[in-house]
Amino acid sequence: MSFVNNGNVVFSEEQEALVIKSWNVMKKNSAELGLKMFLKIFEIAPTAKKLFSFLRESDVPLEQNSKLKAHAMSVFVMTCKSASQLRKAGKVTVGEASLKHLGATHLKYGVVDEHFEVTRFALLETIKEGVPEMWSVDMKNAWTEAFNQLVGAIKSEMKPASEA
Amino acid sequence: MSFVNNGNVVFSEEQEALVIKSWNVMKKNSAELGLKMFLKIFEIAPTAKKLFSFLRESDVPLEQNSKLKAHAMSVFVMTCKSASQLRKAGKVTVGEASLKHLGATHLKYGVVDEHFEVTRFALLETIKEGVPEMWSVDMKNAWTEAFNQLVGAIKSEMKPASEA
Repeated sequence: MSFVNNGNVVFSEEQEALVIKSWNVMKKNSAELGLKMFLKIFEIAPTAKKLFSFLRESDVPLEQNSKLKAHAMSVFVMTCKSASQLRKAGKVTVGEASLKHLGATHLKYGVVDEHFEVTRFALLETIKEGVPEMWSVDMKNAWTEAFNQLVGAIKSEMKPASEA
Repeated sequence: MSFVNNGNVVFSEEQEALVIKSWNVMKKNSAELGLKMFLKIFEIAPTAKKLFSFLRESDVPLEQNSKLKAHAMSVFVMTCKSASQLRKAGKVTVGEASLKHLGATHLKYGVVDEHFEVTRFALLETIKEGVPEMWSVDMKNAWTEAFNQLVGAIKSEMKPASEA
């Protein structure tokens, strides 16, 4: 399985440096890059739109949906910050959100592995386009690992209450 | 919903021409392009590998898995032929396979919309890379429509027997 989280964070200083280096360039464009990531998700998997109430109830084009823009930016920032802090914190941290809340929300809306996978692909494509001059296989692997750790932590909170 | 098939095939002569023109260039590379399409699917959604018994039971790298290669080529060829014949036939045709069999197989292995969507994205990327000199928005839309028709036809045979 892709997203196992056994509590042991293995993330090297080199991986941390690659993540922080690219995040420092991207952070000023978080709104644009976050939206780009979500547009990529919906390009690949249009049915994922049905997971978002503010898209189901709206006729506005995706690019102009202010709720989507806000959501996309916050997800992108949370993901990148979590990756940047992963090694020093020694565990997945998610800023003001709690992993318990994220787990409950993803469970409630029926998010499955395929959604996380499409999101990972969209994140990597977005970063590649955000920092083309520094993109490398090592950087891709570092972001992949950090994302997998984040998803593993969310999934560990997605178990129904009876299994907790 | 993306893949509704109401039995009325709407596919213009222009769309047919774009599909046939690109398929005529790609067909001699069907083995390579089919494998490329499946590697793209698994790059985006690694868990989709678990749908294939010949991948679950194998330690060979994907690129060297002869069963995957054969399967990938046959899926790619079937998809492209179905698209090429769509307008003249006035319905989805799938060569030697039957839609009933394809529906039953996809139902049995737990294929969901997200898998079809990732496959569509991988198909479009593969065609774009296969015929970069003739790729266009119109060509993308033509292949998207043909693929949606094919999936709609398969999905119409994926209903459990009791609903048939």
